[in-house]
Amino acid sequence: MDVAAYIQDNKAEFFADLKEWLAIPSISGHPGHTEDVRRSAHWLSEYLRTMGFPTVEVWETRGLPAVFAEWPAADPDAPAVVVYGHHDVQPVEPLDEWETDPFTPVEKGDQLIARGASDDKGQVFFHTLGLRALLAATGATAPPVTIKLLVEGEEESGSVHFAELLREHRDRLACDAVVISDTTMWSADVPSICTGMRGLTEAEVSLYGPDTDLHSGSFGGAVPNPLHALAELLAALHDDDGRVTLPGFYDDVVPITDEERELFARLPFDEDAWLRTAGNSRAAYGEKGYTTLERVWARPTAEVNGMWGGHTGPGGKTIIPREAHAKISFRLVANQEPRKVQEAFRAWVADNTPPGIRAEVKIPGGGVRPCFSPIDSPGVQAARRAMERAFGKPVLFTREGGSGPEADLADILEAPLVFLAVGLDDDRIHAPNEKVEMPLLLKGAEASAYLWEELATALR
Amino acid sequence: MDVAAYIQDNKAEFFADLKEWLAIPSISGHPGHTEDVRRSAHWLSEYLRTMGFPTVEVWETRGLPAVFAEWPAADPDAPAVVVYGHHDVQPVEPLDEWETDPFTPVEKGDQLIARGASDDKGQVFFHTLGLRALLAATGATAPPVTIKLLVEGEEESGSVHFAELLREHRDRLACDAVVISDTTMWSADVPSICTGMRGLTEAEVSLYGPDTDLHSGSFGGAVPNPLHALAELLAALHDDDGRVTLPGFYDDVVPITDEERELFARLPFDEDAWLRTAGNSRAAYGEKGYTTLERVWARPTAEVNGMWGGHTGPGGKTIIPREAHAKISFRLVANQEPRKVQEAFRAWVADNTPPGIRAEVKIPGGGVRPCFSPIDSPGVQAARRAMERAFGKPVLFTREGGSGPEADLADILEAPLVFLAVGLDDDRIHAPNEKVEMPLLLKGAEASAYLWEELATALR
Repeated sequence: MDVAAYIQDNKAEFFADLKEWLAIPSISGHPGHTEDVRRSAHWLSEYLRTMGFPTVEVWETRGLPAVFAEWPAADPDAPAVVVYGHHDVQPVEPLDEWETDPFTPVEKGDQLIARGASDDKGQVFFHTLGLRALLAATGATAPPVTIKLLVEGEEESGSVHFAELLREHRDRLACDAVVISDTTMWSADVPSICTGMRGLTEAEVSLYGPDTDLHSGSFGGAVPNPLHALAELLAALHDDDGRVTLPGFYDDVVPITDEERELFARLPFDEDAWLRTAGNSRAAYGEKGYTTLERVWARPTAEVNGMWGGHTGPGGKTIIPREAHAKISFRLVANQEPRKVQEAFRAWVADNTPPGIRAEVKIPGGGVRPCFSPIDSPGVQAARRAMERAFGKPVLFTREGGSGPEADLADILEAPLVFLAVGLDDDRIHAPNEKVEMPLLLKGAEASAYLWEELATALR
Repeated sequence: MDVAAYIQDNKAEFFADLKEWLAIPSISGHPGHTEDVRRSAHWLSEYLRTMGFPTVEVWETRGLPAVFAEWPAADPDAPAVVVYGHHDVQPVEPLDEWETDPFTPVEKGDQLIARGASDDKGQVFFHTLGLRALLAATGATAPPVTIKLLVEGEEESGSVHFAELLREHRDRLACDAVVISDTTMWSADVPSICTGMRGLTEAEVSLYGPDTDLHSGSFGGAVPNPLHALAELLAALHDDDGRVTLPGFYDDVVPITDEERELFARLPFDEDAWLRTAGNSRAAYGEKGYTTLERVWARPTAEVNGMWGGHTGPGGKTIIPREAHAKISFRLVANQEPRKVQEAFRAWVADNTPPGIRAEVKIPGGGVRPCFSPIDSPGVQAARRAMERAFGKPVLFTREGGSGPEADLADILEAPLVFLAVGLDDDRIHAPNEKVEMPLLLKGAEASAYLWEELATALR
């Protein structure tokens, strides 16, 4: 019996089990559901134990628990792979917009409707079916790579203890690649693989002028105004081509290759529809020489997220304010280092502060490194072959504009990321009536089965 | 007996009367003192009636009352002059910083210490002594010009009903000049006359981008950010020479004359000391080609008073915000028209809004016209002669950077302003331990006496 046939034969049981898991309201962001998140972790660990994982543990954190399960390859020299997903889910408000109860999973045609169906229980669960199919099809008692499943319980509340968890268990999580199943593909018709996520670093700049707000009648026109200085500073952060002006900002950026551009360009992208999803933005705008997808996926940015100073209440107050502030964030792409960008920003602010104004830059934390696995890297090529075998058609490539815990995984475990996901952008994750396309989950299971075979040779 | 001798002979009685008035806590900004403001108006009207004013009236407003008193010239063709001052005072908090009770006037050397001693009861009151001295010295029973004393009761709470009052009584206030006694001179050693005040117009600009805040990971770098657009707009409001870039902004500006520049330059101005009063500003900055005094007195400005948008709370929020706002005010000099500047600003914002951003400009009210009486105008020359006769030395000239009810007086009564004042910048008005220099009040009385003579011929 081959992998695809096994999956078809066992899909009813697979969806029945998944529904049982989905019925547990493991909302990590809601204190009233703490016990449900624990129940969810225990349900999953019981399931994994029953299906044959030799090691299954519930890993406690200072918050909510993760599940760790390991199934070693028969060959001790086989590569090891961490598979990341999460078992907690988003809150369900507004409840009255759900057509069915969020925790009573319902099938409707090809769709399975429940909170967590796509994000992320469904996508975690397809790996169990895939592995069972692979073992059944090959008659083996162990996978061709060591599989270390790590299923977090706090992703929907910011993964606040996740980096700590990774550091604590770094030795046991040692691996040659990290497979991430918590994203989407381009569309049901266009299977695709994500190859990178932008990093992030943030800064807050404060400009100080006089010790107190000054009367603009008595002093206006003769002393520097911190709001003018801030406007000039922020306006100077980009040039006329929409490029960031920090010296050296682009030095470490891996240029987008002709191949990747060409593959991005094959994606059926409707810019007007995209602008509608961008809060009905009226125009695309960004760095000259790049398309919209290239801009959000493969190019770094400087974005002013907030700005304030002086009188902001109702009515007028004719002052020269004592201070002005802005919050700025930089999205980074490989191989930019957050620390280097932070230093460049500090230096640039100091160089661009006019006489009479004192500047202060605060940088909260070390930032998030970008992660990127080039299309021609072994892990991505293995995932491409696995997806093409499952879907029977060419696979395209995407990236993501932001990142969550994935950056910590790449950073702390020092392993390349490989994205395998079958969610869709219209799955209504984080919204009422979340759904998953059941045929895609089965394709995900099939691709998962093939991925272990492909990685076994690709990573050796 | 001449004017100066009469003043010397009667100064004890003058200060005794003034102290009685100062003892009334006529704080207009404090609801608990409403009755005290009324008592103050009645005290003054009784005093003016006793000293001989044929007409004395308390003019009610929708708020607190003003006092009007008229003493017609004997000659029906003589010019008429409105004399403006106010009988309400500032609050006294923080009370524990007063060395003596604010409403128990105390003499200390040459100083009289009490709330209102300089601002403005003392300066209103010197006119009574001046007029008595002039009548005594000339033996006349009426002044050489018709004097219309108008003493407001709401100046310290924004003169909210004053324009209404002026419009209501415009006929009775018809005049050839308005004498203002509510400002300061350069210093005790340097008598000076103010010749103008800057006007004002305000605007609020709002820029709108997407319908909602957008995730800067998903969309950052590919859609316009209203905060970037606002920073660019506000940065473009001034050129590298500190000049305002609104087209036509300077078209109606009366250039500062060589004579006025030369007279300003004679003032003993200490820029470092001035910067200390400017909230310890670290540097002077403004329109190229002008001194600090010229900048605050004789040049128009554009000043950003407040600016806000996006995330302004603690922590980071990596968004492209949906909107950005700024409050802007323009100080105007003769002969700029607020309405014209408002139109120029609206047009400039429309011309400088980038694609994908929608701009909205709100303009609250019609603004305040600048007022200006050239040094060589008849009223200013009359005041100069009166001051020089009183002080026995040359008089210099200043202007003021902002204006209060003076602009309404000039606008509604359509008469030139003439400033006659002997307050000092260090009188601690609006602060604890307000004082007035008693010898200067007597000089004010003397100058007031001469002013009626001088205006009688100058305005004829």
